[in-house]
Amino acid sequence: MEREASRDRRRRRPERAPKAAVPYVTRRIPYYAFLDEEALTHIERQAFRLLQETGLEFREAPAALARWKNRGAEVRDTRVRIPEGLVRELLASAPAEFTQRARNPAHSVRIGGSAQVFAPVYGPPFVRDLKGGRRYGTLEDFHRLVKLTQRLDPLHHSGFVTCEPCDVPVSKRHLDMLLAHMTLTDKPHLGAITARSRAEDSIEMARLLHGAAVLESECVIMANVNTNSPLLVDKVVTDAAEVYCGAGQGLIVVPFILSGAMGPVTTAAAIAQALAEAMAVGAYTQLVRPGAPFILGNFLSSMNLRSGAPTFGMPEPLMSNLAIGQLARRLKLPLRCGGALTASKLPDAQAAYESADSMLSTVLGGAHFVLHAAGWLEGGLVTGYEKLVLDADRLGAYAVMLQGFPTDDDAVGRGAYADVEPGGHFLGSSHTLAHYTTAFYEAALSDSNSVEQWEELGSKDAAQRAFDRWQRLLAEYEPPPIDPAVRDSLEDYVARRKAELPDAWY
Amino acid sequence: MEREASRDRRRRRPERAPKAAVPYVTRRIPYYAFLDEEALTHIERQAFRLLQETGLEFREAPAALARWKNRGAEVRDTRVRIPEGLVRELLASAPAEFTQRARNPAHSVRIGGSAQVFAPVYGPPFVRDLKGGRRYGTLEDFHRLVKLTQRLDPLHHSGFVTCEPCDVPVSKRHLDMLLAHMTLTDKPHLGAITARSRAEDSIEMARLLHGAAVLESECVIMANVNTNSPLLVDKVVTDAAEVYCGAGQGLIVVPFILSGAMGPVTTAAAIAQALAEAMAVGAYTQLVRPGAPFILGNFLSSMNLRSGAPTFGMPEPLMSNLAIGQLARRLKLPLRCGGALTASKLPDAQAAYESADSMLSTVLGGAHFVLHAAGWLEGGLVTGYEKLVLDADRLGAYAVMLQGFPTDDDAVGRGAYADVEPGGHFLGSSHTLAHYTTAFYEAALSDSNSVEQWEELGSKDAAQRAFDRWQRLLAEYEPPPIDPAVRDSLEDYVARRKAELPDAWY
Repeated sequence: MEREASRDRRRRRPERAPKAAVPYVTRRIPYYAFLDEEALTHIERQAFRLLQETGLEFREAPAALARWKNRGAEVRDTRVRIPEGLVRELLASAPAEFTQRARNPAHSVRIGGSAQVFAPVYGPPFVRDLKGGRRYGTLEDFHRLVKLTQRLDPLHHSGFVTCEPCDVPVSKRHLDMLLAHMTLTDKPHLGAITARSRAEDSIEMARLLHGAAVLESECVIMANVNTNSPLLVDKVVTDAAEVYCGAGQGLIVVPFILSGAMGPVTTAAAIAQALAEAMAVGAYTQLVRPGAPFILGNFLSSMNLRSGAPTFGMPEPLMSNLAIGQLARRLKLPLRCGGALTASKLPDAQAAYESADSMLSTVLGGAHFVLHAAGWLEGGLVTGYEKLVLDADRLGAYAVMLQGFPTDDDAVGRGAYADVEPGGHFLGSSHTLAHYTTAFYEAALSDSNSVEQWEELGSKDAAQRAFDRWQRLLAEYEPPPIDPAVRDSLEDYVARRKAELPDAWY
Repeated sequence: MEREASRDRRRRRPERAPKAAVPYVTRRIPYYAFLDEEALTHIERQAFRLLQETGLEFREAPAALARWKNRGAEVRDTRVRIPEGLVRELLASAPAEFTQRARNPAHSVRIGGSAQVFAPVYGPPFVRDLKGGRRYGTLEDFHRLVKLTQRLDPLHHSGFVTCEPCDVPVSKRHLDMLLAHMTLTDKPHLGAITARSRAEDSIEMARLLHGAAVLESECVIMANVNTNSPLLVDKVVTDAAEVYCGAGQGLIVVPFILSGAMGPVTTAAAIAQALAEAMAVGAYTQLVRPGAPFILGNFLSSMNLRSGAPTFGMPEPLMSNLAIGQLARRLKLPLRCGGALTASKLPDAQAAYESADSMLSTVLGGAHFVLHAAGWLEGGLVTGYEKLVLDADRLGAYAVMLQGFPTDDDAVGRGAYADVEPGGHFLGSSHTLAHYTTAFYEAALSDSNSVEQWEELGSKDAAQRAFDRWQRLLAEYEPPPIDPAVRDSLEDYVARRKAELPDAWY
């Protein structure tokens, strides 16, 4: 409590005003030029070569094939070959930056440019916490995770499938998830994609929440889709593009490539393929509706050569995070990549090393929208409650880092030695008093006590402290206000659709 | 065993030849221009202003005062004010790069330029391991830690006080530590500093090990000293400069600044003060002997504002790591900074998050010599056995990252799609077969097994696996060969000096 209150006070301090002014991070440090011009050009050329010479398969998507053909791409059966000029021309109409409006405008996020947005893990069927162990996620878990995301300031966005609510039929799950994101939090969120009708339900409910007119001019919901690497685009993707972008809403397109399986084993080639696939679908979003918000995504994973299992936090994907940022900026497109990724089963040292290195490279690389920024465990199979709050604490540190530090006369300490002699100390000096309240990030979960104090408090490791913290955050949770009429309309919609739909578990 | 053997095989693969060819890391990725020219100039100007206007205290060091006076610095009592031109002139004679020769030349390391050298933690009075808990370090611990460092390939340097052997009188401790570094490992190491005679013992024993003639022309031993921030240099530092540099050996000068206590609370000011102090002592090493190897160091820590306790892995020191690298390169001096730092008591998630962020920023920042790169726990009070091997595993990952990745036609996958169709897979493709053995870093301690396999192996967290690993590494340890006559001469020296010295515990 005291910690929380203190952090709130800190937020309001004037010196870090740019952070307090917007509900996301504004990057003020330069980008890292990891690859040189020649290397970037090689990768880009290979991406365009793939689109032009090999082409992509668009399967079960006759409307997409027709659109490509009309626009001059070479379409043979389901294979689409797209000239570089056409891809670039189409992508040019995608906005370099846009706003995703939240139902609470104070939580609307900017996507692209110098804005950086963090969202929780997406997709795990399992959850794990220190007391309950590893188990299938339920709707109760889902609700708790949405509430925790609402309470964690370093998470700017609610994501979508923070865990799968496995106790709800697959055919109805998306309705419960949408209702939770629309009522239990007032941060922005994503929508469903797994069937065209579920995408349509997402847009319908967004219309109820925001008003139909708003959707015509503003992005209020986005969907995240994966290509079927290598070079295959299925109906889920084209349907999502048609439903979301058709309604002027956003699409994040993310090739998921386990290098050596769904893409070549070399880092540069995996990046090139991911770039090609994301550009192709991005171009398709602009065929559906020019100007539709589009986020260029990718998710590259390395492999354990002994078992073929995906590995995370390894140097090859870390380098990819840095390189992909450069490629996205050349295309002037918002980027999604990286996250706090790990193969670890537990919120232990492995999880933290891998997540930190993944995430710091993601942040330095300049990803604008970071899904999986908190809560990811076990290669994405598990949402960790402790991991969620531990990761969020580090996101707060990255947010500070992204703002850099001042180097004016006062900041370099020109006047700091007026009342401090060599061999003295700065503990009560005027310069220290003027700056100490804003000098340092205050982590909620990093223990800097003496070993004696730490033992007195129960010798708890970080995971145990994280358990205490999420329990407390949940106990203190209060739902954000919502217009009862809007809430009723959403609940009515969900009830009606649930009555219409059969229970199906696939 | 299988893992170790496999890593050895991997080392010998041709594609990563630059790594195999030298016993340290050769950086091939660009530096990150974190601060712009204006910011760097502001910080430098403040550093020179401190040296020129405020000056440094050189206490109990009449020889140093005399040397400064002779060279034209303004000396009043013990205060020395040094003009920018003189500092720059003196520092210009310090080598931008040099080699520290190891007794096994295959382990000699290059310091500066594109070489990056990792060394273990320095200084903890305590050790901790999973079974033995937290306790004072002993000579047996010290021997085990030196042996482990010898076995861990990602550590290129043996450091010095890997833990304090607290069961040996302080007056004799340095002799046992030197003997261990000279016989149990054949990697390079540092020497003692805590008293002039101990520094002299270090040089004498180095002469016995390497031959007196070698010391005249090569650096075989270095010492690491801290200034007494703010702006105070004591006898330990000037003695070490006179003994080590006087013998043509190396000195690492490291202001340790807890921002807000031993230096100003703002990041830029703490960096400026550290730069001033390190430049002043660096300049002094060149007064003692022009051309003496000198490493510009610094160690900046943030503070818990509630308790005043030092914190680690926080955004302010991470940014410092990036900025200081730029400042050192402008001075064309080798740099020591950063490390795998944490305030955590245990090798848990806190330790790993903080260590990873500290270390990745250190590596990207371009520190040439990284002390504390493995094994640091509890703000430097404790050497962790598990932490040592866990950190070392991540150093291997950073080493790969520092080499970047190729982007030639083959690497970008120009020929990779000849035998793979869209929707297919690359598991047995010719491109994959040609590259997979060198494609990915193979971590020793990251578990990527399925949860079922992991449970079958005992559901061990990273710390437990690390415990198993250091036990195995120690069991398999074999001392590197040494000329028995040299060994005898070292043992005789230690025996003689121990007989001469009283047992003293301070």
